[in-house]
Amino acid sequence: QLSQTLRSIAPNRRGVLVAAAAVKLSTSSTLRLSSNLPPLASSLYPPISADGRSLSRSSYSRIEPADLLVFADIIGQNHVITDPFEVLAANTDWPRDCRGQGGHVLRPGCAEEVSAILRHCQKRRIAVVPQGGNTGLAGGGVPVFDELVLSLSRMNRVLEFVTTIIFTLKLSQLESNSKIDAVAGLVVAEAGCVLADLDSHLSEHGLTVPLDLAAKGSCQIGGNLSTNAGGIRVLRYGSLRGSVRGLEVALASGELIDCGRVNEDESRLVQLMIGSEGTLGVLTKVTLACPPRPANVRLVLIGCDSFQSVLHLFSAARSTLAETLSAFEVMDAATMSAVSDNLKLNCPLSGSSEFYALVETASCDASGSNDAGKLDKFLECLVSLNHESAGSIDAVISNDSRQFGAIWALRERAFEALVADCGPAGGYMQFDAAVSDRLDMQRLVLATRAEFGQLDCVIRVAGFGHLGDGNLHLVVTADPAGAAACGLWPRVEAFVYGWLARRRGSISAEHGLGWKRSAYLGHCKSPTAVSVMAGIKRLLDPQGILNPYKVLPPSALSY
Amino acid sequence: QLSQTLRSIAPNRRGVLVAAAAVKLSTSSTLRLSSNLPPLASSLYPPISADGRSLSRSSYSRIEPADLLVFADIIGQNHVITDPFEVLAANTDWPRDCRGQGGHVLRPGCAEEVSAILRHCQKRRIAVVPQGGNTGLAGGGVPVFDELVLSLSRMNRVLEFVTTIIFTLKLSQLESNSKIDAVAGLVVAEAGCVLADLDSHLSEHGLTVPLDLAAKGSCQIGGNLSTNAGGIRVLRYGSLRGSVRGLEVALASGELIDCGRVNEDESRLVQLMIGSEGTLGVLTKVTLACPPRPANVRLVLIGCDSFQSVLHLFSAARSTLAETLSAFEVMDAATMSAVSDNLKLNCPLSGSSEFYALVETASCDASGSNDAGKLDKFLECLVSLNHESAGSIDAVISNDSRQFGAIWALRERAFEALVADCGPAGGYMQFDAAVSDRLDMQRLVLATRAEFGQLDCVIRVAGFGHLGDGNLHLVVTADPAGAAACGLWPRVEAFVYGWLARRRGSISAEHGLGWKRSAYLGHCKSPTAVSVMAGIKRLLDPQGILNPYKVLPPSALSY
Repeated sequence: QLSQTLRSIAPNRRGVLVAAAAVKLSTSSTLRLSSNLPPLASSLYPPISADGRSLSRSSYSRIEPADLLVFADIIGQNHVITDPFEVLAANTDWPRDCRGQGGHVLRPGCAEEVSAILRHCQKRRIAVVPQGGNTGLAGGGVPVFDELVLSLSRMNRVLEFVTTIIFTLKLSQLESNSKIDAVAGLVVAEAGCVLADLDSHLSEHGLTVPLDLAAKGSCQIGGNLSTNAGGIRVLRYGSLRGSVRGLEVALASGELIDCGRVNEDESRLVQLMIGSEGTLGVLTKVTLACPPRPANVRLVLIGCDSFQSVLHLFSAARSTLAETLSAFEVMDAATMSAVSDNLKLNCPLSGSSEFYALVETASCDASGSNDAGKLDKFLECLVSLNHESAGSIDAVISNDSRQFGAIWALRERAFEALVADCGPAGGYMQFDAAVSDRLDMQRLVLATRAEFGQLDCVIRVAGFGHLGDGNLHLVVTADPAGAAACGLWPRVEAFVYGWLARRRGSISAEHGLGWKRSAYLGHCKSPTAVSVMAGIKRLLDPQGILNPYKVLPPSALSY
Repeated sequence: QLSQTLRSIAPNRRGVLVAAAAVKLSTSSTLRLSSNLPPLASSLYPPISADGRSLSRSSYSRIEPADLLVFADIIGQNHVITDPFEVLAANTDWPRDCRGQGGHVLRPGCAEEVSAILRHCQKRRIAVVPQGGNTGLAGGGVPVFDELVLSLSRMNRVLEFVTTIIFTLKLSQLESNSKIDAVAGLVVAEAGCVLADLDSHLSEHGLTVPLDLAAKGSCQIGGNLSTNAGGIRVLRYGSLRGSVRGLEVALASGELIDCGRVNEDESRLVQLMIGSEGTLGVLTKVTLACPPRPANVRLVLIGCDSFQSVLHLFSAARSTLAETLSAFEVMDAATMSAVSDNLKLNCPLSGSSEFYALVETASCDASGSNDAGKLDKFLECLVSLNHESAGSIDAVISNDSRQFGAIWALRERAFEALVADCGPAGGYMQFDAAVSDRLDMQRLVLATRAEFGQLDCVIRVAGFGHLGDGNLHLVVTADPAGAAACGLWPRVEAFVYGWLARRRGSISAEHGLGWKRSAYLGHCKSPTAVSVMAGIKRLLDPQGILNPYKVLPPSALSY
């Protein structure tokens, strides 16, 4: 019925008023299709807040036809999106476990348009959700109520840059070019650049983006910075924020701040914006320092009998592979079984193990001969560990880049595999915990399994993540009806966050807080720290129009 | 006369009131010795501010005997320092080119004491300067007027840490210990830890601090973080802030915020504090991620005929040495001549060159055999560049750690060598510029030399710095009397900052803004950005007691 409605209104979708009417139609249509749609974000976990306050829509202005005319004036009629399918897609987060009720998506083409849109929204007090590739896992990039979605997708250019032109000599790798400063290794890109596109741009110049994560084909560099995304390369290149040399940010007032220099005081402002999930400003442009692209990559997949063995290997990898170590990931048997059960991906190891470590080395040495000795030393440790564990360790080594994708898929598709147990709506809960004692990565999984694993509705309690950063992704999957009947999800959430609070862990590491975790911030942060962050929010966004209901607990802010 | 005064009062220096009297005596005494002392900070460059406002003491409370009793109660009488020599040392910055007029130094022994001191200062509105190793170059760590000095020197412990204890197996490098988490590579230290001491602690566990700079024997990790110090390892390990996993900070109110977790929102607060030069809080504790200690280091000193050749070598080093490249420094002929004229240090290269590049490689491969191929490839580039430059390139390679110190001294003592031209008081001016186009590092030196090099009073215009980071230290030396007569220093300052503003460079990179540069912040930062930072300052320090007159221009704040 929705598609019928769409067909019938499509030819008329020219004027803004008609488009607005179409959205109204589509909203009622989607309601009729609700069995296929994720639940409304605003309907989940009532009362949503850990502090007992339920979340209600703040008194932002509703978007009027006159507003749409202003927006069309700024960015052009065809970039004011009201097509119900596109609007629905922009309202639904990637795991499809919640859905906002925004009616409009704006697609500005440049920072000045972002600035003009925000100026109008500030004046009218219209709430705005900046959206990148919409691959977030904490709900930070989708509306909770009827916020306006500000999509950065069109702002995907790699920009010109002050290039260090060396003209007297001609070493081949130094050819100057207009977009990338090869000597400096700096690139300036618009926030909407898709990570994989930016990386392939850089590869032409022998450089790489110091960030890699499963969503690279869709996520945007602006969104990556908004959550300070982690991924699998933190171990090698450090936190993404350390590679940022400049940012252009549109403030809530619409003012553009160009933090494109390296001054330290400005740098603090840059750092404050990074990880702010669009609550303090909209990132429009980024300057990144990019390392040389590795020429030689090897991958070792290891099956271990215990988490201790994995930790031993990690320590051995740090000392023997050191500067060539580029990733150290771990997943447990429950995760691997979901990958093989639900995605039919095959693990190349012969037997099954309790834990799987994925170790990647990367160096600039194309032949690999120079770094072979380091890998040999690591493998000696592996052999000795295998000996001590009575032969229970199993490993495959690959230097064939065609195999890499198949091996990495086991880890990169782990979350997707687990969600497939019972589907997204009410069928799973995922955590992004950070711990300082690496053993806690296993302890939390074991404790959660002990607490809930016996319940009939629970299917799997699985853990995987970035061992190098002490970052665990814990996923519990369950039959949605059974979970609802026994109130499983609030219990799981309370248990895990309570456990982390006692162990001084953190409730989020690399996915951001979004709205799914914002109410629990107090579990790992003092009231003083929360109130300082709330004060900074009020200072930069006095009307609270930027990504409301996100990051800070509802009790910390009142608009 | 001062020492006589001191001798006579020393036996009585027991009660606070007697000590306060001693300070009064010593102040008048030091005035009589003023010819040997740096000028008062408050007397320099009137009007001090680039915006035309002269700097005057804000209406902070004067320290009364009753305050000293409170402080003695908190930290013990013998840690309330009023000894005139110690107080004078704490008032004088490392280059000895300016001097504050503080009368007291407090030496708390723990974070709780820092907290209690700040609570009292907040209540009484007493201005405070947090001080680390006092090795700063921008005047950020010394009083401008009579601020209270809060020294972190006693807080120099490496603290206990949640250690990942692996007990089932015994690979030698994994022995657990109580202070350093070898698996995580994390260390928790008090802010007053001297950098070199912290590094030697870590060396016992095969780790290193991801920071190295000339002042390492005196500077403290808290001070390093307060300025986000750069140094020679940024190229290898990235900005220091990227390695910080947690901070404990005492706010102006005295409240301690423990940002010891990895939560992203907390991380933004951590990042805001880093580089804030004590204006937003006093760092009391830091958690750092530490990389494995390199086992094999080589140093190449290269004399080049042109800056372009240096840039070529940098690009070649990035692609051939890549992950083993650990430093790439540059200095010009004027700098090298100061080093040999004033410090009598010998450059091991046979002839003299226009520029000198210092390239360091470091890897975990103890034998060096694995990484020798990378160095060979770099040396091939060097040979081919030498060929293209008609044999004007000269180089020495060292893998003898005993020689390293002598070669590094040429670069690390460059600033000291230049200051020795005419002494600190009025005899030099130094800059800490950051540029994105590496060629600007040379252009700025040439432009400054063209503008001022012909003046009779000017001795040298020299440039050196961190090529890998586009960070130039420009130093002009001149006869103090001649410089004063022609108003040289304000002209040099205006010229250099104007040049940087036009080229979109930054007036500070790694030394901080302190008070020497704070008035010029507008040269590289928009009014909006300045006002956001001022708003954050007011939010966190409503009374303005923390390190006043620093970082932000006087016009941006009014207390």
